[in-house]
Amino acid sequence: MPAAFPHVVLGPGDDCAAVRPPGGAMLLTVDQVIERRHFVSGTPLDLVARKAVARSISDLAAMGATPWCALATGALPAGFAQSDADALCVSIKNWAEHWNCPMVGGDLAAMPDAASPLTLTVTAIGVAHASGHVVTRAGAKPGDHVYVTGALGGSFDRATGMGRHLTFEPRLREAAWLLDTFGDRVHAMIDLSDGLGRDAARIASASGVRIELDANAIPRNEGVADWRAAAGDGEDYELLFTSDADVPDSIPSLGTPIRRIGTVRTGSGCIARIDGGTLIDLTGLGWDHA
Amino acid sequence: MPAAFPHVVLGPGDDCAAVRPPGGAMLLTVDQVIERRHFVSGTPLDLVARKAVARSISDLAAMGATPWCALATGALPAGFAQSDADALCVSIKNWAEHWNCPMVGGDLAAMPDAASPLTLTVTAIGVAHASGHVVTRAGAKPGDHVYVTGALGGSFDRATGMGRHLTFEPRLREAAWLLDTFGDRVHAMIDLSDGLGRDAARIASASGVRIELDANAIPRNEGVADWRAAAGDGEDYELLFTSDADVPDSIPSLGTPIRRIGTVRTGSGCIARIDGGTLIDLTGLGWDHA
Repeated sequence: MPAAFPHVVLGPGDDCAAVRPPGGAMLLTVDQVIERRHFVSGTPLDLVARKAVARSISDLAAMGATPWCALATGALPAGFAQSDADALCVSIKNWAEHWNCPMVGGDLAAMPDAASPLTLTVTAIGVAHASGHVVTRAGAKPGDHVYVTGALGGSFDRATGMGRHLTFEPRLREAAWLLDTFGDRVHAMIDLSDGLGRDAARIASASGVRIELDANAIPRNEGVADWRAAAGDGEDYELLFTSDADVPDSIPSLGTPIRRIGTVRTGSGCIARIDGGTLIDLTGLGWDHA
Repeated sequence: MPAAFPHVVLGPGDDCAAVRPPGGAMLLTVDQVIERRHFVSGTPLDLVARKAVARSISDLAAMGATPWCALATGALPAGFAQSDADALCVSIKNWAEHWNCPMVGGDLAAMPDAASPLTLTVTAIGVAHASGHVVTRAGAKPGDHVYVTGALGGSFDRATGMGRHLTFEPRLREAAWLLDTFGDRVHAMIDLSDGLGRDAARIASASGVRIELDANAIPRNEGVADWRAAAGDGEDYELLFTSDADVPDSIPSLGTPIRRIGTVRTGSGCIARIDGGTLIDLTGLGWDHA
């Protein structure tokens, strides 16, 4: 293994990898990407590998954690070229190391048919923030402000299948800055994979609170027609978090915008308030990858 | 989480799970099972789940490790019944806990077609033996004896697709007994997934030695015609190990047979010596799941 990762005692190639455990709590997550479900056929393999790694890294960011090591599997359609399999492994390894997360194990296997969908999984393991604070979905408190990083919507180009869902940058540095700066006043956090409405409702449900969003305040990417598209598109991988702190509208060192988009109340569910004061239930807005 | 697993701080349901790191080194592995590749269509889902979990647990055993926690994914054919998905999750969780390995995270997703193969992955994390000894494939030394637990061959019933490849017991207790008893005199170990010939050759290659097996000594399961079938069938998940210790032919507390089947020499490759002294190259005997 590269000397950059001294906690990796034994890398890939044996029955297991061996790593030295971290001092703090460990965070663990696994996610998968499936051809024709999470990416279109013909997507460059390097971008498929990037997305597979980035989705799991984004889950680490959403807990305020730092990447530590990862394992991956690839289930390859029958007849998948050996050179493509090799390139895929290199891409997975390189993207993982790009986010400072050495790939310590993996398995490639062939699927029975050429028509079987290419399927990758990435298990990512992280270390909790140095403060020991692990930001779950369950910590939102009535009175908290609701914030989101970046801008939402339009991550998947329907014409080509390309777009930011393949090239997003997991918000690791933003999460670290938030915890460095506000510590355990960052009460709850999630990465937006399934749409603002659906994911905000997950915080509301886990925390036993109601989340009220101001529809006009939701930041939209260029070309995103309205707040509904921004809240419902999914695959933004921005951080949605709640805090009782006054968080500035940009992270000084990174330039990442942060927008206050709502308030945590007592109650349940997630609603958006639009111009005339009308309330719209957002709980089902967004999509379920499963 | 069950109180039986106090190291699990936060179980499934958030962006990541959180666990307290162990005192010793951690062992990590991931493996997958794919319909029509690792099990036939129509195999009871509980046995599919069992095999997916047991394969990764067997990798932990092969390092002398104790299970600690696990994560799983399921990629489900389109139209897979929700009740079957639920049952699969319960089976994965129950089998993992059966081997004292709480399932802390996972992801289910739908594949694009009903004909897509059901695909499961299990990432298993273990803790090194209390002595700190991690048994790799690379430690075999010339002069070592070569041993194997149990008996080999016939794990896959070609008529039905059933058999021991679905119901084998990972050799956790046997590995623990070996390390308790012989410590770092257990020089190299691997679990036999791809056949004795191929897997012994992996130890030879990783250790830079030659492995010579006595064909007549290879223990065969009932109904296995000859040593070639025993050495080539694969999916036995028995432990193959080398040691300079005189290991008894049965583990006292467990009753598991252990057979001395060969010797480590200087050189390279893996050969079998048959009756008349003829040497046969075993390196390619067995099969490659990929």
